[in-house]
Amino acid sequence: MNLGQKKTIVAITMGDPAGIGPEIVIKTLQEKEIYEICNPIVIGSINILKKAVSILDVNLVFNKIESPKEAICKFGNIDVIEPVEYNYDNIKFGAVQADAGRMSYAYIKKSIELGMNKEVDAVATAPINKEAIKAAGVPQVGHTEIFQELTNSEYALTMFSVRNLRVFFVSRHISLKAACDYATKERVLQFVININKELSKLGIMNPRIAVAALNPHGGDGGMFGREEIEQLIPAVEEAKKRGINAVGPVPADSVFHLGLQGKYDAILSLYHDQGHIACKTLDFERSVTITLGLPFIRSSVDHGTAFDIAGKGIASAVSLIEATRLSAKYSKMMKEVNEIYK
Amino acid sequence: MNLGQKKTIVAITMGDPAGIGPEIVIKTLQEKEIYEICNPIVIGSINILKKAVSILDVNLVFNKIESPKEAICKFGNIDVIEPVEYNYDNIKFGAVQADAGRMSYAYIKKSIELGMNKEVDAVATAPINKEAIKAAGVPQVGHTEIFQELTNSEYALTMFSVRNLRVFFVSRHISLKAACDYATKERVLQFVININKELSKLGIMNPRIAVAALNPHGGDGGMFGREEIEQLIPAVEEAKKRGINAVGPVPADSVFHLGLQGKYDAILSLYHDQGHIACKTLDFERSVTITLGLPFIRSSVDHGTAFDIAGKGIASAVSLIEATRLSAKYSKMMKEVNEIYK
Repeated sequence: MNLGQKKTIVAITMGDPAGIGPEIVIKTLQEKEIYEICNPIVIGSINILKKAVSILDVNLVFNKIESPKEAICKFGNIDVIEPVEYNYDNIKFGAVQADAGRMSYAYIKKSIELGMNKEVDAVATAPINKEAIKAAGVPQVGHTEIFQELTNSEYALTMFSVRNLRVFFVSRHISLKAACDYATKERVLQFVININKELSKLGIMNPRIAVAALNPHGGDGGMFGREEIEQLIPAVEEAKKRGINAVGPVPADSVFHLGLQGKYDAILSLYHDQGHIACKTLDFERSVTITLGLPFIRSSVDHGTAFDIAGKGIASAVSLIEATRLSAKYSKMMKEVNEIYK
Repeated sequence: MNLGQKKTIVAITMGDPAGIGPEIVIKTLQEKEIYEICNPIVIGSINILKKAVSILDVNLVFNKIESPKEAICKFGNIDVIEPVEYNYDNIKFGAVQADAGRMSYAYIKKSIELGMNKEVDAVATAPINKEAIKAAGVPQVGHTEIFQELTNSEYALTMFSVRNLRVFFVSRHISLKAACDYATKERVLQFVININKELSKLGIMNPRIAVAALNPHGGDGGMFGREEIEQLIPAVEEAKKRGINAVGPVPADSVFHLGLQGKYDAILSLYHDQGHIACKTLDFERSVTITLGLPFIRSSVDHGTAFDIAGKGIASAVSLIEATRLSAKYSKMMKEVNEIYK
């Protein structure tokens, strides 16, 4: 049996119905390639998707399904699961609405249910609006937290993917100064351990993990900052002792260049902008987020609901196309490993 | 008169004779394009350049000259000025030597003399070795400091150039934590003023200068860091009041992407790695340093003497070729402005 031929099922959640989600979902499913690399199904609302279809002036047939098993997955058809709890038609494009937040949340919950039951292999998420889910009374602040909590995962590990780079982050939404203190030996080591574990689940065995340096030139022997000496070198040494193929700290202005040359399977960046500058300068739209550590692969666009242009048909679907493509790729890798070890 | 047709004279200093300087100078002058865009002359030592020629197994004629006026500047000929003070033949490749430091310094001094006398329009520098110039008793720590002091310039403004990006730095060789505190309103404003002044000397009038943010998402309204609110926004506002076309702070993971799209003439990064990650991830070898604020243009490779591979003929000249190309480009821009205003 050629496992490589087996298509994975990717659920695409429609995101906030008031944002650009509906139109970029439609645009994504107008790419023939998507049907070649996976079996896509949508979790969303047909009436709202129909609005997006009319704006985009395209010809598509909707197939309302209850379960992925019923899906046709053929280009020109869109298989849609509509969660029963919330399905409103009176949503206005471009505004924060509690109803829209409720709907967004219902799509995510359904995708998690299908992922946990192994009815889908991966979930690619269109953007939700943080204000709208807050107005809807959702306790979590964002997508990643919802996925982690509802799947009862120990952690959710955010990976940025662009070209051949896989970039992880010790910290994200804290100030740069706080991030300098946050990158302790213990945290860096824990991240390296988790990256090693998650990449091996994808079949990347004994991955080469580069830890980025914090200071310019890696501190140049302590001349400009001692974090390398006191925290980062000890973290890498300890990881090596545990048999992990870790290297570094590598000066941050070289580590991404070396990664592009194929020297590393993963790069651990120490603060938000360190990894984000590299990825987004290289390819802004194709910088996609993958969440590892869950029982299934989840990918996400790296942009928001863009209320200012929602419903106009002008939003680019490049990021969701890339997110769908990568969720298909990584879930296939994960599935192949599971087939071998089961 | 078509000013654009007038070729500028670029002096290429040979750098440390024990490093890869001699061989990359020879490789650079084997590029026909260099003779099409400028009149290159070398400041170095013919006997050492001849060693590089024999290693590279190429055919070239050396023309020893006393002044740029005597230069032939024809592909296949290399016009060389040999500073009289120091010219040793007993230099070994790959080692720190005080004599090599003395020679490196003599080349630089000669290039500055020619630049000050307007006998050359620009200087492109091959790498020197900091230990060697220290052993030679040179008081300055590096190239930029030598150029600033010996030209009596108020400041030397380092600009990174890669593709269409021009990137400046509020701080460079200090720890990341120190850099967070270093980017004060006053310093950022002074940099914006200096960038505005120096770019106008190149004919880029009223340049759009983007100031990068320090914290992720520009601090998101103070949620992750207050430097944007307390230092950066006031600096940009004050610059605008003074008639400068400044914008920002722009989140650092967008500012370089927007710069690549042509939105800015210059980007002010707040710490070493912020700008370096962007430039070097985009194109490691073609990230070239230009020093502005001097009476002439100076460009530099962004690598060291590479003693480990010196004299083997394997060093890449891509960076020196790019540095020579850019010094020709920017000195032509500067010359055209001077012609208009004289």
